[in-house]
Amino acid sequence: MKRTQRPSEQTLAAFGELRLIERIRKKALARGETGEKLVVEGIGDDTAVLKWEKDWWLLLTCDTLVEGVHFVKGTAACRVGWKAMGCNLSDIAAMGGIPLYAVVSLACPAGTAVGGIDEMYAGMMNLARRFGVSIVGGDTVESPGGLCVTVALIGKVEKNRHVARSGAKPGDAICVTGRLGGSLLGKHLAFIPRVEEGRALATKCSPSAMIDISDGLASDLLKLLEASGVSAEISEDAIPVSEDAVRFAKQTGRSPVEHALQDGEDFELLFTLPEEKVGRCLRLFRRSFSTPVTVIGKVKKGRKKPLLKRAEGSSVVLEGRGYEHFQSLPAAARKVRRSV
Amino acid sequence: MKRTQRPSEQTLAAFGELRLIERIRKKALARGETGEKLVVEGIGDDTAVLKWEKDWWLLLTCDTLVEGVHFVKGTAACRVGWKAMGCNLSDIAAMGGIPLYAVVSLACPAGTAVGGIDEMYAGMMNLARRFGVSIVGGDTVESPGGLCVTVALIGKVEKNRHVARSGAKPGDAICVTGRLGGSLLGKHLAFIPRVEEGRALATKCSPSAMIDISDGLASDLLKLLEASGVSAEISEDAIPVSEDAVRFAKQTGRSPVEHALQDGEDFELLFTLPEEKVGRCLRLFRRSFSTPVTVIGKVKKGRKKPLLKRAEGSSVVLEGRGYEHFQSLPAAARKVRRSV
Repeated sequence: MKRTQRPSEQTLAAFGELRLIERIRKKALARGETGEKLVVEGIGDDTAVLKWEKDWWLLLTCDTLVEGVHFVKGTAACRVGWKAMGCNLSDIAAMGGIPLYAVVSLACPAGTAVGGIDEMYAGMMNLARRFGVSIVGGDTVESPGGLCVTVALIGKVEKNRHVARSGAKPGDAICVTGRLGGSLLGKHLAFIPRVEEGRALATKCSPSAMIDISDGLASDLLKLLEASGVSAEISEDAIPVSEDAVRFAKQTGRSPVEHALQDGEDFELLFTLPEEKVGRCLRLFRRSFSTPVTVIGKVKKGRKKPLLKRAEGSSVVLEGRGYEHFQSLPAAARKVRRSV
Repeated sequence: MKRTQRPSEQTLAAFGELRLIERIRKKALARGETGEKLVVEGIGDDTAVLKWEKDWWLLLTCDTLVEGVHFVKGTAACRVGWKAMGCNLSDIAAMGGIPLYAVVSLACPAGTAVGGIDEMYAGMMNLARRFGVSIVGGDTVESPGGLCVTVALIGKVEKNRHVARSGAKPGDAICVTGRLGGSLLGKHLAFIPRVEEGRALATKCSPSAMIDISDGLASDLLKLLEASGVSAEISEDAIPVSEDAVRFAKQTGRSPVEHALQDGEDFELLFTLPEEKVGRCLRLFRRSFSTPVTVIGKVKKGRKKPLLKRAEGSSVVLEGRGYEHFQSLPAAARKVRRSV
């Protein structure tokens, strides 16, 4: 008889990223690490939210890009730098916050050219400067493997104005910025994080919940709904499909809308807000941004799986097949390593 | 005729870590990234110091540990976690600060066991809890190469009370906590960061300059002196040599004091303070800590290379042969990579 494997004996490939994050979160909570009253949002949201000043809360986030996972070997260094800064900015954007200071930790092969590092910093600084962020420190270490870039970013948001992913209410409209899908054709290395849009939303529309789309519209919507304890119905027809999703679909044989639903790294904002605020939100975007905003569905009560209304009228359960670390890469030699 | 290579064409192996940090710092400054008035200390000190609240400044630091560089494959995961948290705590300690919140970014092979991640977090949390730090977020991504752990840590320090590495004055005593050398035999994975000692120093003795010993006593003293624009004379006799330095010397054939001077990762505090405060400092340590503190020399004026007074009476120029990334590992296949 085959013995059931305990979680601790499973590989990350078998266990999956989302269960791992939940496991870490529970352990941290159990020990009171994130349970104290100064932590407003701990492990599990886009950024941590910490009580700090009287009127402002502190946001803290960090993301790592790994060669061979987030970018292929041979990618221009300035693009890698841009993406490393951008995905952190996107996390601050998803809280409605103002990004402020970054530290950068680079692990790179000794054979990397100094010019490559110059270019990576140029990419990071271009984007940082655009959003008023200063790079104030970090470290640089040798990596015997590939390149690994981590950016940690702090920001701030007015007390009680931060937008968590857990506040969606039945009846709320579900909205998304930009056009989705096919990011792998280029946008994932050159996107503009929606910092200004996120800020305008937080200060003028008070969304009930918000998340940035990093793993895919369907996957990230499922996370938002689960955190909020609600369900949803979205319309296939309404999903804003990018030109790249159409181009990519021709290569893959899948439909453009499937790419818009399932592709990762769009770095757009997905948010919910009460029906009566939708008009104000649409006017705000028309007046202030070239980024479109689109209503794609509605929050429903209960914890049932969300539905996708097909163009022809039928409904199917919405599945998240977006990117999940440890499960989405082709299975390599994945023997269990207990030590590191 | 051989053309001189421009810096941008050199590999990091040829260019070296210290020149790279200086290059990044200058570029950041040139663009005003760290030049604005809210940044008290930017790139180049142990942590960034940022104006934030009225009475408190914010400290922000981040460090990456890489498998094969900071720990060998097969190291117990809890030790790796301990070290990842510890080296960041040590950076906060060196500013005289109070550590507060950490985010953790893990890049690990899909074949890693979930239990290994549990243990790594256990190691981090053990040390975090000891110093009142909460782990509040981060991310976990797949690494096709080895394991790579980054901790970003924020802390705080009273306005004008932070201790930079640039304040040493001629005539100041040079002091060090603990006993040095041979860290590779085990201490580098199990050290207690000198957070309490650093805090007591900052609040009760106002050191003129402070740095943590991560690359080696000689190397880190040279950094402190250069940042302060001064020289020094230290006595070989006075250097507190650890038992592990003695044990290690038997294996390497070098002298114990050479290990105490040149070995990296002691994570002790090296600081300077006016002569008249030395008595108070020694009493403070005797009363409050089991950690010893030792006066090893004196700050001298001018920018001459510092001297090491040998036991038998002669003096030699103090050389830093401590750890420098990109130059200290055995040269691997180091062809120039401009792209990443």
